Amino acid sequence: MQIIKTIKEMQALSRGFKAKGKTIGFVPTMGALHEGHLSLVRQTKAENDIVVVSIFVNPTQFGPKEDFNKYPRDVEGDLSKLSPIGVDAVFIPGASEIYPNGFSASINIGSIGDILCGASRHGHFNGVATVVAKLFNIVMPDRAYFGQKDFQQTVVIKKLVMELNFDIDVIVCPTVREPDGLAMSSRNSYLNEAERKAAGILYKALKHGEGLILNNVKDASRVKSEIEALIKTEPLAEIEYAEIIDAATLEKIDDIKSIAAISLAVRIGTTRLIDNLVVVLSI
Amino acid sequence: MQIIKTIKEMQALSRGFKAKGKTIGFVPTMGALHEGHLSLVRQTKAENDIVVVSIFVNPTQFGPKEDFNKYPRDVEGDLSKLSPIGVDAVFIPGASEIYPNGFSASINIGSIGDILCGASRHGHFNGVATVVAKLFNIVMPDRAYFGQKDFQQTVVIKKLVMELNFDIDVIVCPTVREPDGLAMSSRNSYLNEAERKAAGILYKALKHGEGLILNNVKDASRVKSEIEALIKTEPLAEIEYAEIIDAATLEKIDDIKSIAAISLAVRIGTTRLIDNLVVVLSI
Repeated sequence: MQIIKTIKEMQALSRGFKAKGKTIGFVPTMGALHEGHLSLVRQTKAENDIVVVSIFVNPTQFGPKEDFNKYPRDVEGDLSKLSPIGVDAVFIPGASEIYPNGFSASINIGSIGDILCGASRHGHFNGVATVVAKLFNIVMPDRAYFGQKDFQQTVVIKKLVMELNFDIDVIVCPTVREPDGLAMSSRNSYLNEAERKAAGILYKALKHGEGLILNNVKDASRVKSEIEALIKTEPLAEIEYAEIIDAATLEKIDDIKSIAAISLAVRIGTTRLIDNLVVVLSI
Repeated sequence: MQIIKTIKEMQALSRGFKAKGKTIGFVPTMGALHEGHLSLVRQTKAENDIVVVSIFVNPTQFGPKEDFNKYPRDVEGDLSKLSPIGVDAVFIPGASEIYPNGFSASINIGSIGDILCGASRHGHFNGVATVVAKLFNIVMPDRAYFGQKDFQQTVVIKKLVMELNFDIDVIVCPTVREPDGLAMSSRNSYLNEAERKAAGILYKALKHGEGLILNNVKDASRVKSEIEALIKTEPLAEIEYAEIIDAATLEKIDDIKSIAAISLAVRIGTTRLIDNLVVVLSI
């Protein structure tokens, strides 16, 4: 497993793989790897000749009052988790390698980046789109893998790839959950014992909403209000948003038809957690 | 010479060339090809296995009051000029192929796009950066060729490639000129006989400025004012800007050192013309 720190070396390595006709699968991460990331890496290994993982805590996708500084970092631990899976290369650039002095380009992904999480995290998705575009040009993958837990991010990345015409398949993999249903997230490490227990409310609320929809409740506002009421039974939880949305456009919907997503952002204490379920009705 | 109209076909073609280890050279154009474009295409042919030219009059780089509608279009004539040079593929997409309904991504290249031509053409260079990024992902070239006549554009494209990490060499080729020194431009076709004659003043002014610098005039403001005075002797000419700039950053300079660019934008009647000279002092 090669550890690569510069863009030049990473591009040379990828160019070499491509010249040999190898397919490259890519998993971009911010490190602090958990089973959710590792499931992406395993799927990447199964579907590609070469597996590249990047570890980069991207400063431009954090707001000034967000958790960039305290975001968990554990490169040694990450590498020890990746090595047994048969990862070929881990790209771990420094911040100045990605954003040299004078850097000024940015990709604006449009209004889809301003709703849901983007409404409270201004500029977050433009930061994501810009760094992912850079990583795509550096790693030059055939396929890139993202977790469904960050649902809006997956829609933003698909839009980025489609609109800027990256010749890359975006593959969205299922959310990996703890036994109580909590979506795995590097930020779960911020939770104390009481908060960790309280955090189970997100998945309970999602499953309640899914149950309503599968039982033929078509009125999105009723599903939304029942979900919100359930979350409010948990004193440590504070809802940022709970929405029933179109899974392709992320727009709020009134009437639930064949497919919808339930999307949540909830603070448990000071920790902001997100989760979602896509509900498909049989036709 | 293949004529390609869809992104999917162009990407498939380029993928095929790359799989065979062929190098791809790319010349993006807005058509209405003149000898300046053809010199780029010939250099591309000499330096690459495969030559791809695109013809696309990009609406997003024209302002609402600019000449998008009247910009010269002559695809038949363009193809007849490209064919004898041995071009492999010409990519001619329709506007809805490049900008489908709902398209919203854009690349902001930063303040370098807001000065000089960008000061009067708001959003122009973001439009250029966005379409060029798309074309790079569609054509997937090893090298891309641009004319020095559009000097600010070449700096913007180099910044785009460097900051978004495109694995592409940007090659800037010399401006091709008419016998009186007028830089070849598709927009020269807008000039009537008197205007065409008056347009020679741009090159005269550039050469006068170059002469001063080569004769050791270090004071940029003196060079600028002499250039402006010379252009003002031409009644049909109206200066938009005449600047002595750093050739790398495009910033205005006070003292001329080893290398500087003289950059002009001048209206001749209603036609806006640009030109530049890079002056290198022997050390």
